[in-house]
Amino acid sequence: MTDMNKQWLLKSRPHGEPTLDNFELVETAIPEPGEGEFLLKTIYMSLDPYMRGRMNDSKSYAVSAELGEPMSGGGIAVVVKSNNSRYNEGDYVVAMTKWQGYSVSNGEGVMKLNPELAPISTGVGVLGMPGITAYAGLLEIGKPKEGETVVVSAASGAVGSIVGQIAKIKGSRVVGVAGSAEKCAYVVDELGFDLCVNYKDPDFVEQLGKACPDGIDVYFENVGGTVFDAVFPLMNDFSRIPLCGRIANYNMTGDPEGPNKLPAFFGQMLVKRITLRGFISFDHYNLLPEFLRDMGSWVGSGQVKYKEDIVEGIENAPEAFLGLLKGKNFGKLLVQVSDDPTRK
Amino acid sequence: MTDMNKQWLLKSRPHGEPTLDNFELVETAIPEPGEGEFLLKTIYMSLDPYMRGRMNDSKSYAVSAELGEPMSGGGIAVVVKSNNSRYNEGDYVVAMTKWQGYSVSNGEGVMKLNPELAPISTGVGVLGMPGITAYAGLLEIGKPKEGETVVVSAASGAVGSIVGQIAKIKGSRVVGVAGSAEKCAYVVDELGFDLCVNYKDPDFVEQLGKACPDGIDVYFENVGGTVFDAVFPLMNDFSRIPLCGRIANYNMTGDPEGPNKLPAFFGQMLVKRITLRGFISFDHYNLLPEFLRDMGSWVGSGQVKYKEDIVEGIENAPEAFLGLLKGKNFGKLLVQVSDDPTRK
Repeated sequence: MTDMNKQWLLKSRPHGEPTLDNFELVETAIPEPGEGEFLLKTIYMSLDPYMRGRMNDSKSYAVSAELGEPMSGGGIAVVVKSNNSRYNEGDYVVAMTKWQGYSVSNGEGVMKLNPELAPISTGVGVLGMPGITAYAGLLEIGKPKEGETVVVSAASGAVGSIVGQIAKIKGSRVVGVAGSAEKCAYVVDELGFDLCVNYKDPDFVEQLGKACPDGIDVYFENVGGTVFDAVFPLMNDFSRIPLCGRIANYNMTGDPEGPNKLPAFFGQMLVKRITLRGFISFDHYNLLPEFLRDMGSWVGSGQVKYKEDIVEGIENAPEAFLGLLKGKNFGKLLVQVSDDPTRK
Repeated sequence: MTDMNKQWLLKSRPHGEPTLDNFELVETAIPEPGEGEFLLKTIYMSLDPYMRGRMNDSKSYAVSAELGEPMSGGGIAVVVKSNNSRYNEGDYVVAMTKWQGYSVSNGEGVMKLNPELAPISTGVGVLGMPGITAYAGLLEIGKPKEGETVVVSAASGAVGSIVGQIAKIKGSRVVGVAGSAEKCAYVVDELGFDLCVNYKDPDFVEQLGKACPDGIDVYFENVGGTVFDAVFPLMNDFSRIPLCGRIANYNMTGDPEGPNKLPAFFGQMLVKRITLRGFISFDHYNLLPEFLRDMGSWVGSGQVKYKEDIVEGIENAPEAFLGLLKGKNFGKLLVQVSDDPTRK
């Protein structure tokens, strides 16, 4: 091999939108695999929106790319030299190859591909990370039911395109959101979504509302921004939002306490994989027998104590209520309206 | 009965904080129960923060109180006259008695109480709606594990006090947030929480951080506002937020697109019982065998299609990546770095 190793280094961290100046192309010697290692020649580099986060210095779910180091990322590669008995020359793999032509691996995080089963490029696509992202997010969190309405943003993208197709397989009605008429046509005509709305159309909000006459049961969130703002008011009771990405926010800078408070909140929800779920007690009245059994026994045994704040006389109800909203009560607030003959 | 029926009517709807002027006390004749109905004499009126929402004209999970009608709400009552064979004079019940001394019911939504088991007032407290709210929200959504840190706001309140005690029974470490030193002392000394922080202390944020050295696994959200802002950065990976109430926001008015965007978002999340859950694909790699089986078969059968957007040459990677963030790609974005010998 008289070749060199072309590498794209992270030269500087972007403020807001990244530019070409943030990257630097260098050529270095092709590395030599050590004991137990093997040399990979990159065939396909995968480019994914999550990589924007790796350009920042802030903590995220993955370590940031270091300045002066190759940009992080996965790819499809072939083993060209091996000191590892489990990987042979000519093996095709998915690996964290980074943005470079050659890389050395010890096998950690590497998965072999069978080129007979599917094109090897699908190992970073429909049969790889974007595929399982769509599959897990939709089925584990979105849980679409037959006849429900599923909305997918970035509908023609690597993840969104698969989300919508799985939702169709599960019998849902699927509405895509994409950024051009051409993408929308592809999503409907080729992928079989029921409808697709172009978020760049001036009447996008109206179009989306018409596309979802029964509201939205699952919104697979890839983009954030104005698309989220249009989707959210249409969400149905008991709907689910798998929060996969917020491309529209990735280049956001500025004060997270100002208008960016909601995007910053979503960023943390995603990175920390937090579950936020609104609930109302009466939805859970199926638990009443269990609740009365447990709580009755806990109250009886003194394991659960309670305090009542009893205001005398119905005349005083409004004042007591206003105080409740300010936290002036101390314990469960009650108004005694008439005598309690059972109280000793 | 020479008594009259004292009723608190909703006289006007509040803008922001309610005032005494929003209510009007009237006296009317005690109503007569019709066929199959019975007359209830209110003993205890329950006052709960959710009632603030009923004063608005906007749609919520329950119908608003009508202007000129008694304020809505539950209470404990005794049957004083009955034309219904299932309810006898002297029976104690929980019912939607509204803010009034007497009410007529046909039995819908009424639950009988046994005064031998517990004080009847607990029927709107620890053994009633606040109790099951705490029980369901904590156990079904919060799912606290032994040794995890559970934070409860409005910790001395009707719901919060029970949440914390159940979390202790389940073996969690429990930190309360309350609005006075006296409430905090009660929560720790009487209810057995591990710690309690007063949100009115100037160094509340620091105190909360120190109280949660291992972060927060479950935050039972009752209040919103500055308490939420202090709690949220401490949330751990995979943490859960049962969204029960946002007392601090109930009197909020103004533009939901401005600084109120986040509170407005939370309001909708609650009212519609929406689940929002951040996720990252590699947390779900346990699904890999299922995923490869399903997706392999769907791709093979043509039920799932995919599109690749292949950019030639590693030199073009940064430009392609910048385009990806703007949605310029069409399909899964790949950079071809070297030949793919498997591609025909």
